[in-house]
Amino acid sequence: MEKGRREDGKSSEVKILVIGTGAIGGFYGAKLAQAGALVSVVARSDHDSILAEGIHVESDAGDTRFAPEKVLRSAPDYGDPPDIILVATKVLPGADTPNLIRGAVGPGTSILLIQNGIDIEEPVRLTFPETEILSGLAFIAANRVGPGRILHLDYGRLTLGRYPSGPSSRAEAIRSLLESVGVPCLVTEDVVTARWQKLVWNAPFNPISVLAGGVDTRTILGSEESTRLARAVMEEVSQLAAAAGHPLPADVIDQNIQGTRVMKPYKTSMLLDFENRRPMEVEAILGNAVRIARSLGVAIPHMETLYALLKLVDSRIGS
Amino acid sequence: MEKGRREDGKSSEVKILVIGTGAIGGFYGAKLAQAGALVSVVARSDHDSILAEGIHVESDAGDTRFAPEKVLRSAPDYGDPPDIILVATKVLPGADTPNLIRGAVGPGTSILLIQNGIDIEEPVRLTFPETEILSGLAFIAANRVGPGRILHLDYGRLTLGRYPSGPSSRAEAIRSLLESVGVPCLVTEDVVTARWQKLVWNAPFNPISVLAGGVDTRTILGSEESTRLARAVMEEVSQLAAAAGHPLPADVIDQNIQGTRVMKPYKTSMLLDFENRRPMEVEAILGNAVRIARSLGVAIPHMETLYALLKLVDSRIGS
Repeated sequence: MEKGRREDGKSSEVKILVIGTGAIGGFYGAKLAQAGALVSVVARSDHDSILAEGIHVESDAGDTRFAPEKVLRSAPDYGDPPDIILVATKVLPGADTPNLIRGAVGPGTSILLIQNGIDIEEPVRLTFPETEILSGLAFIAANRVGPGRILHLDYGRLTLGRYPSGPSSRAEAIRSLLESVGVPCLVTEDVVTARWQKLVWNAPFNPISVLAGGVDTRTILGSEESTRLARAVMEEVSQLAAAAGHPLPADVIDQNIQGTRVMKPYKTSMLLDFENRRPMEVEAILGNAVRIARSLGVAIPHMETLYALLKLVDSRIGS
Repeated sequence: MEKGRREDGKSSEVKILVIGTGAIGGFYGAKLAQAGALVSVVARSDHDSILAEGIHVESDAGDTRFAPEKVLRSAPDYGDPPDIILVATKVLPGADTPNLIRGAVGPGTSILLIQNGIDIEEPVRLTFPETEILSGLAFIAANRVGPGRILHLDYGRLTLGRYPSGPSSRAEAIRSLLESVGVPCLVTEDVVTARWQKLVWNAPFNPISVLAGGVDTRTILGSEESTRLARAVMEEVSQLAAAAGHPLPADVIDQNIQGTRVMKPYKTSMLLDFENRRPMEVEAILGNAVRIARSLGVAIPHMETLYALLKLVDSRIGS
């Protein structure tokens, strides 16, 4: 197992604290460690297992295993603040991200949120107004299959950028690290537009996959009516993004439909959560968009319908 | 068990052939027999049981048991045509109602369709253009709990009228029979408007009850977002009905919401079908409305969303 040291032995490693050791935190944590960053993790239920066994990413592209520099139960235990806090937890109504990281944020720390949804950065920005916030979007198919065990199925590209906009040398540093180990990475100066663009895919496919009875992308696009629905939702996201000041490319819908048609049949993260009776990211993916639409007076009836249904389904998970 | 004879012994009984011995056919068949009509039934899977045991309606308002005049396997076996053919089958894409009744329709026969949905009369009207068609709507909570065994939970009112419009002495005769045994009955000269009015309730509650994960009416109206959704669907039905030439009362939505709030928590027929893995009346209740909306150029995005989702759910029932 690597210890997060670069081969040239230099001690100028970027210090990264990863919050959450699911598929996203585990994958990017492992890749950043492989690239030479000093990666520590905060893990709760998986703490003891990761302390003993490290984190293991299985992938057709080659396995990655690493022992984090520190395996902590909470962020304040980290000590001197890290350069980057990478937050990779799910965005759920009960999850208080500012509180999770509060004790570890120093004056030189950047906070990188690799999470789903739209408008998810605001609680962190309000709590840490002086801190650089980086917003990241993972285009990856990966699942946590056990404590500290991640199965990487496909893709892996990270898009990130300073929130709400602008250049960032930290984002560039992360890009260099990831690309040095073969993980595609794109730095954008307009990450909010990138979030809207990702919502074009998430807003239809995540909810439909659950509400239509547990179906993959091929099944959804195998039906004329549900393809029509997916397109209608994408159209609403596109109109909403434009109204919010983030117009998307004209061909964004066709690109998403066609790109999904050529993908392997894919179970969405929401469907995996649903099947495992875990809470779903209903508010991050749909609720926030519905609230933005209502505040801007934009009609998004298809999304509102999915939201109302999914909220009821979600409220009964675990009940 | 009564034999469908009136107490005064007259032989002028109305001859009724009931197609389908589920909750609807069983309940109204039993009540019409109790009222003195000569009621025969066509039953398939329940044939032998009904031949041996008759039909039994259990109800807090008093049980009804009757032995049908004839228990047949198919309509042409009936012999001389009946006065009324009462069709109480589910409206499913595979169900060929004209073919089910073809051999039993005589020149004096009226066809009464007590079925869910909108625009469900057309196949019968096209096949039997010279025959009086009566369209009926059952406001009843009743379930088939076994072969020939119906559990009547609540309500029971039948609204019926000549299709597409106009007066009908046969409809009046049915009303007299039902009211003579305490079943409320309303004859309308505008039954299509009555169907739209019933769709105001069916279009939201049936689909939402299934798609939101198997919930009753109280759960749906216990959530602000799904109440909002139910209202939005009702608004679309109302607009569509008006565009189709059947404007509904202005307070139809409030009446339906408030009426449902004071009802006992109720599982919709679609949810009962879903839970029992039986095909649902997706096309009768939503598909036909969507097609009418598209032909008239009326936007019903909430209903289209429900339709697309439900069609996928339904296509996987029994798979």
